[in-house]
Amino acid sequence: MIKDAYTLSAAEALSACAAGRLTSVQLVQSCLDRITETDAGIKAWAFLDPDAALAQATECDRIRKAGMPLGPLHGIPVGLKDIIDTARMPTQRGTPIFEGRQTEEVARLVEHLREAGAVIMGKTVTTELAFVHANETRNPHNPDHSPGGSSSGSAAAVAAFHVPLAIGTQTNGSVIRPASFCGTFGFKPTRGVISRNGLLQTSVSLDQVGCFGRTLADVALLTDVIGSYDHRDPVSFARPRPDMSAGAVAEAPVTPDLAWFDLPFNDRLSDDAREGFDAVLDILGPQVTRMAPADTLSNLVAVQARIHEYEIAQHQAEVFDTHWDQISDTLKPVITRARQITKTEYEDALAVKKSAEDFFADFFVEFDAIIAPSAAGEAPVFGNGTGDPIFCTLWTLAGLPCVSLPLLVGATGLPIGVQLIGSVEKDDRLLRTARWLQTTLAQAD
Amino acid sequence: MIKDAYTLSAAEALSACAAGRLTSVQLVQSCLDRITETDAGIKAWAFLDPDAALAQATECDRIRKAGMPLGPLHGIPVGLKDIIDTARMPTQRGTPIFEGRQTEEVARLVEHLREAGAVIMGKTVTTELAFVHANETRNPHNPDHSPGGSSSGSAAAVAAFHVPLAIGTQTNGSVIRPASFCGTFGFKPTRGVISRNGLLQTSVSLDQVGCFGRTLADVALLTDVIGSYDHRDPVSFARPRPDMSAGAVAEAPVTPDLAWFDLPFNDRLSDDAREGFDAVLDILGPQVTRMAPADTLSNLVAVQARIHEYEIAQHQAEVFDTHWDQISDTLKPVITRARQITKTEYEDALAVKKSAEDFFADFFVEFDAIIAPSAAGEAPVFGNGTGDPIFCTLWTLAGLPCVSLPLLVGATGLPIGVQLIGSVEKDDRLLRTARWLQTTLAQAD
Repeated sequence: MIKDAYTLSAAEALSACAAGRLTSVQLVQSCLDRITETDAGIKAWAFLDPDAALAQATECDRIRKAGMPLGPLHGIPVGLKDIIDTARMPTQRGTPIFEGRQTEEVARLVEHLREAGAVIMGKTVTTELAFVHANETRNPHNPDHSPGGSSSGSAAAVAAFHVPLAIGTQTNGSVIRPASFCGTFGFKPTRGVISRNGLLQTSVSLDQVGCFGRTLADVALLTDVIGSYDHRDPVSFARPRPDMSAGAVAEAPVTPDLAWFDLPFNDRLSDDAREGFDAVLDILGPQVTRMAPADTLSNLVAVQARIHEYEIAQHQAEVFDTHWDQISDTLKPVITRARQITKTEYEDALAVKKSAEDFFADFFVEFDAIIAPSAAGEAPVFGNGTGDPIFCTLWTLAGLPCVSLPLLVGATGLPIGVQLIGSVEKDDRLLRTARWLQTTLAQAD
Repeated sequence: MIKDAYTLSAAEALSACAAGRLTSVQLVQSCLDRITETDAGIKAWAFLDPDAALAQATECDRIRKAGMPLGPLHGIPVGLKDIIDTARMPTQRGTPIFEGRQTEEVARLVEHLREAGAVIMGKTVTTELAFVHANETRNPHNPDHSPGGSSSGSAAAVAAFHVPLAIGTQTNGSVIRPASFCGTFGFKPTRGVISRNGLLQTSVSLDQVGCFGRTLADVALLTDVIGSYDHRDPVSFARPRPDMSAGAVAEAPVTPDLAWFDLPFNDRLSDDAREGFDAVLDILGPQVTRMAPADTLSNLVAVQARIHEYEIAQHQAEVFDTHWDQISDTLKPVITRARQITKTEYEDALAVKKSAEDFFADFFVEFDAIIAPSAAGEAPVFGNGTGDPIFCTLWTLAGLPCVSLPLLVGATGLPIGVQLIGSVEKDDRLLRTARWLQTTLAQAD
């Protein structure tokens, strides 16, 4: 029996279970105890059924004892953002409109988790309809601050040691930003790696699935498990996926070349974040090429907003039409504005998005990754929004794989993430580069 | 460039491609040439689009050259029984009723194949609605004989070296029997390992997916690729699957114990098959325990027929109602009979099926596998049906994993398979035992 099993990474817990030093029931119970002790102040969970979680863990232990097949996440608890449908647990999408909503359907990624032997721990709090309006989740490092959003609860639950792994989604910056604010690893693989079937659709062009964990290897493993081709998802691709876990442990064959973009909106960086990045760029020295890309690149921020807003207004038209009085005052003006976007403006935005993808398709011939802030600085004070997603917008729009590494600390002691962005479908190379960055900065300490 | 690449197993072709000695285009072209040369006399293919197959192979080669991720079946052509839906290829189900039928949907197992990098070669001939009435496919070893059914074309295509791998289905004996007649390996894993979503449904309780290949390792690899949990398939289970490939190369830790059942219907075995099995049992000596199980076991044959017939009449009621004049005279009397089965009779049959499953759940505590005929003997003469499935009925009814090994030769020189049947969800142990049997008999030659 391992003391404080809730502190283990998924990989550590898997090893301990394989060695007979830990059972899934002990691990899940330890996580549940941790939740009981700490979640009153964090509010990471929208739905939690301890008995159901323990029943799954018992079944995992039975399978192990019986010598039956084990999965790559055998007995490991995983939290799911509350927009991911499962049978037997409600999916309430962060709004009273969907209170008690229970589907028969199971998201494709949940099927993969169950086949991998994972324990579905429960649903983590999302912002309202995975968009701008925050719910009650607090930052585990300081409850006076936001955990970020929209995957607020997934980031907070992993940071608070409630679960080693959680799943979120990112349409703009909803995985990378809360990972940065909460001090976890966040990994959003290439668009189309993970099926979105069974998830709330906010933007068919932009919605992407991502993973939270406390190590790089853990987010890679989780992504390997849940990635698959699904013809029902229009951006899912019918090709082999990168081997994320192999990437996360691979040595870089040569010292990676990184790019840093001096973008107009970099002036939104807080002073402490700027100092942190200056220090990082100093250490990396000639491995980083600073460049000032064309202004068209920052124009993509408006393009993203146009697509995102137009599509959510379309996809969720029935929700807005039927339940307008239950929509938050934060979201209402966004939707009102969204409804003014014309089809032509939307289609123009899609065309610009395509040209951004083309730009990045060529860009990574010379660079292993772009290094960038994950967010503007430390987490904002609670009640003051979920933070500015602008440092994620360009890469998410282009469907590039992004990873946030918890490498910096801000002025008040809150974490600040460093983001690496890679080439489409070269997620393994990105993770290899991330491992190199982590090691290099650790050695420079 | 490898001469006669069509003769390679999937594993051999993968190695050759990895070593740069073969491209997917060369492999697929070699298989297409082989089909052109021989299929006029075999008629294994219901649909073949050489350009589409070569385009997929070209894409596989491009991915390999670009250093992009490779799948476990990268560039390997696979044939699909003509009841498995794909986009861009018709699925005609062996009946003029569905001539030209084209779906938008893609079967779950096809999604897995594409994600694994496989080339979807085309559709292989099935019997009418995957049931009793044969179509035109001939046995590649002797065109005057049947290849068996209902997965006629899949077995024939693999045996004729048209493709290294093909997929079929088995509701009674439709994988194991044609594998036996055509001299290939046939593997039907535990019921629920492979999703049936996107396949013609003939019997929700009994339909199971199986694989054809020319080596044990190949059928194991293909099964690993296409097995997954799918909540839309009511018999798919939400647990990790056995590692088939590991099983197929594993050494048996102790000499396996096998059981042979002296069943009343064993008198249907042909003389040459009986001699063959006597010789096998002689070689295996004390490793095989002969037993005469209770008569209830042979009663299961009638139970299978009742469930199978009742369910196909229900599932396909609309087809039979609307297109009765296009149903074959072979199938018509079966459906007429099926419509007389009462719901009570059907439910009683399901209860007996359940008791058979319970019997076999206990049985394999003492035995690694049951050894049994795959079929009654050599393939029947063409025009005389697809052969007696009775030697597969019990195990398929109980959902047990079954494998047919092409180990015997009949009086006229046609192949005869040896079947091994294992414990539910212990497919890896079954394949390990199969490997042991193959090695043991080869050494005794």
